[in-house]
Amino acid sequence: MDLRAHFDDFTERDWERPTDGTLRLALIGLGWWTREKAIPAIEDATYCETTVLVSSSAERAEAVAADVETVEAGIDYDAFHDGVASEHYDAVYVATPNALHLQYVETAADLDKAICCEKPMEASVERAEQLVETAADVPLMVAYRMHTEPAVRRLRDLLRAGFVGDPVQVHGHMSQRLPEMNPDPEQWRVDPELAGPGASVTDIGIYPLNTARFVLETDPTSVQAMLSSTDAFFSKVPDERAAFSVSFENGVVASCSASQNAHQSSHLRIVGTEGEATLEPAFFPERRRKLTLRRGDLSETITIEKVDQMREEFDYFANCVLTDRRPEGDGEHGLVDMRTIEAVYEAADRGSTIEI
Amino acid sequence: MDLRAHFDDFTERDWERPTDGTLRLALIGLGWWTREKAIPAIEDATYCETTVLVSSSAERAEAVAADVETVEAGIDYDAFHDGVASEHYDAVYVATPNALHLQYVETAADLDKAICCEKPMEASVERAEQLVETAADVPLMVAYRMHTEPAVRRLRDLLRAGFVGDPVQVHGHMSQRLPEMNPDPEQWRVDPELAGPGASVTDIGIYPLNTARFVLETDPTSVQAMLSSTDAFFSKVPDERAAFSVSFENGVVASCSASQNAHQSSHLRIVGTEGEATLEPAFFPERRRKLTLRRGDLSETITIEKVDQMREEFDYFANCVLTDRRPEGDGEHGLVDMRTIEAVYEAADRGSTIEI
Repeated sequence: MDLRAHFDDFTERDWERPTDGTLRLALIGLGWWTREKAIPAIEDATYCETTVLVSSSAERAEAVAADVETVEAGIDYDAFHDGVASEHYDAVYVATPNALHLQYVETAADLDKAICCEKPMEASVERAEQLVETAADVPLMVAYRMHTEPAVRRLRDLLRAGFVGDPVQVHGHMSQRLPEMNPDPEQWRVDPELAGPGASVTDIGIYPLNTARFVLETDPTSVQAMLSSTDAFFSKVPDERAAFSVSFENGVVASCSASQNAHQSSHLRIVGTEGEATLEPAFFPERRRKLTLRRGDLSETITIEKVDQMREEFDYFANCVLTDRRPEGDGEHGLVDMRTIEAVYEAADRGSTIEI
Repeated sequence: MDLRAHFDDFTERDWERPTDGTLRLALIGLGWWTREKAIPAIEDATYCETTVLVSSSAERAEAVAADVETVEAGIDYDAFHDGVASEHYDAVYVATPNALHLQYVETAADLDKAICCEKPMEASVERAEQLVETAADVPLMVAYRMHTEPAVRRLRDLLRAGFVGDPVQVHGHMSQRLPEMNPDPEQWRVDPELAGPGASVTDIGIYPLNTARFVLETDPTSVQAMLSSTDAFFSKVPDERAAFSVSFENGVVASCSASQNAHQSSHLRIVGTEGEATLEPAFFPERRRKLTLRRGDLSETITIEKVDQMREEFDYFANCVLTDRRPEGDGEHGLVDMRTIEAVYEAADRGSTIEI
């Protein structure tokens, strides 16, 4: 197998279908992720543009809008629920704290808009199930940016082609120093009322979990977990540090870990009967990905050109909607993560294996 | 920190004490490991030599002895128990199947010989405890070759110096294709009567477990585990594949995995609050080790000169005995692994966290 040839066209958008449409987006929730990642990504995108901004006040929305040429309106949350400016957008991107996703999805579905919702979908399985039911008649995608990361798609291709033989074991990890990134101890990411059951598994542990599901094309059957919080910053959540094992339908176990209070690091390793593949760094959008492939005497590390992951994600969503296709990371796909994550917290609580 | 300078003298034997003595060794059990790894290593060693070989028949022992210049006698197991040739050795290396260790240790202790015993120490905690009790009055070392691997010792130095900050999470893995290495389905490594409770955790999962203990200088408090066997080759053991999590006294969790039926692979990663260190390959003696160190903007991969791990291990054992020091991997140290491993099988069986 000529690996380098396999990666020559690695940035190819194998999901792209011909269309000359443009999907007009309302962005809901203008935190740093939306401002610094989503807006620039959409400016650079082929199939979508930002036309409406929704925030806690119209002033705040307008202030952000001033820098975005394509925006037609900046409105507050109440105005959004009242359908204000709904003629200016075809779809919404929901990037509020987790526990607020449902209400915006409800309104968007009422307005018959397509929906791209940040992950985790909501703060509990019950609310996520309501969200999926609510959005049953509109396109719904959960914002898994790894699904359209070329390195991850090429990794999935390699696994499909049998490069590692039968997958046996996964190791995956993601960590960052949240208290340094945002020192506010009142922030929603460490507040169970807004974030859901925890801070590390929900927000970043979902990356090794979901990416393992995506590349292995299999779903979880049971989980075990060890969680701990000692730093006062994480006093309201159980998982300043999280280690959890996920058993999959195909017999693979993924040993996952995540921490919001450790050195920034991420990797995903798949060991198989015949070889192995390691993506590292794996999950942080700023980093250039490296994929190390081993099989028999072969050992190669391929450095993969950086793409704007959020641009790819938004273009994928828009391309699917415009060509009337269901995105791969749909509501049912997202629910599997929600059930797995809830099981992780329950497993840690009970000290036992939880079936999903 | 000048990392390269730190590694300039990485092969230094920081454990070595002056002595001009030579420890004479009887090797018990002449399987491929003893013949292909131990004997050449001892030939190359400074502080020991092979003087007696013990096997199932004197003929077999003599046949192997023919190629080893220093050997005074080749004897069978019964002769060993009768004290034959005991004037020709000062210490024994026990490399029989696990469940047979105890009987040779008993005789060696009766003969007042120092003992280097392969890991795992025995087939059960109960028998390992008997072994330690039996050997209470003689030097006893468990053969953890990673303890004297320079790359591992330098990694421990770096962790002591705070390179990664406070350790947070460990990932460790070891796998190999046992059915290709030895296709005999009747071999002792997959026979619980001789190997103990399993094949992967006991034989190779002990590497990430024990090396994590060694470099972090902390001991396990609880474990969780997921084990599975599907291939007929592993029908008598529960762990063709093993994933287990080990929680340590210092709050770190190690996500470990091992398989006797996967691509040869090994690594040990320590993620801390300030940085991380990954040793890969980590555990196979044939491979040149690489240590990747990250902290802030620093990212360096240091390739570490290969040493004969078994030579280092035997010289360490001999140097300790000759200078009247207790080796670090003593019986009590080994018992902690035995208890942890037994807990891993129990945790998998019960589907719950087991305290140690």
